[in-house]
Amino acid sequence: MSTLPPTLKKIALFFERLPGIGNKTANRLAFYLLRLPERDLKEFGDEVINMKARIKLCSICLNFTEKNICEICDDKNRDHNVITVVEDVSDLLSFETGDIYKGVYHVLHGRIDPLNNIRPEDIYIEQLLRRIREDKGKIREIILATNPDMEGEATAMYIKNKLREIQEPLKMDFKITRLAYGLPIGANLEYADYMTLKKAMEGRNKF
Amino acid sequence: MSTLPPTLKKIALFFERLPGIGNKTANRLAFYLLRLPERDLKEFGDEVINMKARIKLCSICLNFTEKNICEICDDKNRDHNVITVVEDVSDLLSFETGDIYKGVYHVLHGRIDPLNNIRPEDIYIEQLLRRIREDKGKIREIILATNPDMEGEATAMYIKNKLREIQEPLKMDFKITRLAYGLPIGANLEYADYMTLKKAMEGRNKF
Repeated sequence: MSTLPPTLKKIALFFERLPGIGNKTANRLAFYLLRLPERDLKEFGDEVINMKARIKLCSICLNFTEKNICEICDDKNRDHNVITVVEDVSDLLSFETGDIYKGVYHVLHGRIDPLNNIRPEDIYIEQLLRRIREDKGKIREIILATNPDMEGEATAMYIKNKLREIQEPLKMDFKITRLAYGLPIGANLEYADYMTLKKAMEGRNKF
Repeated sequence: MSTLPPTLKKIALFFERLPGIGNKTANRLAFYLLRLPERDLKEFGDEVINMKARIKLCSICLNFTEKNICEICDDKNRDHNVITVVEDVSDLLSFETGDIYKGVYHVLHGRIDPLNNIRPEDIYIEQLLRRIREDKGKIREIILATNPDMEGEATAMYIKNKLREIQEPLKMDFKITRLAYGLPIGANLEYADYMTLKKAMEGRNKF
């Protein structure tokens, strides 16, 4: 049984550590790198080596940034009084791919997940609460945009309760909202699962 | 519409160039790198930067190696008179994952594919013919193990004809064989496609 040359093996093993990449894909990616120009490999390698030093979390919303404040929090044209709370930066990017939303964000970098030992204090909930406490009543709405699954729902519920706790004594009257549940666009009723259908029916709107 | 910080963006764009990786996966991989220890990123970055300089093609079979001759061609315990011709190093690795084969290989690094402008002279066929010509009749068998699809079949056919051309004048009498077609192990007859079933029937063996 033969193995790859050490350099290729190390690169493939590194790829294998990344999410969703198995042994064969890892090898395929490593082989593919060999076809790329040396200059591009040099540039990519350098970026990887320096990425941790360069990339920080935005001191306001915890989005990735190379400055102190991310480009969204720094944008005067956005509504800084509406905050959408997302689990990850990838969720934020989903909203940002279209013209869906003009407020700002708060990135939790995870969700409460007791089965995987992720407690409320392991994600950036406290930072959200502090941000709202320090805001002195300008915030109008907090949109809880965690994922529509069990952990996302539990995380949204936990944050809602924490928000209520600070809202009452401080007499803040922002709205707390949650993304709508329903049928994804383009879906086929015949193949929709029961819970989605139920939510779509319960949430039906005037047309 | 917000974008990623430049370093992350560059890393994600690089991932997106790799086969089978789309925009969202590329972002996810770049985010994941941020969670890894700086030391590991340094090591991986260095390997990527240096890989092209370190990795060569084996001067005999064109497998990847960091020496002049790959570890398979250098192995005295293998049968050097049986050569399996594969399209890519990943195919070679598939045979090497088990105790399937003890001969040596020839890696074509591609297959003839006129629709994608890949001609016989664009892959390593000439090197195979030269190797056999210079072998002076010790080779007993050439196993054509290109993929069981249209391009793989055409490549095998092309090589077979070329082998016949050198075989006759040089009075070499090695066998030319092709991998068996048939039902994959664990397959369900009900879901097998027509061509596979036809091949499985034609190639039926005494039991």
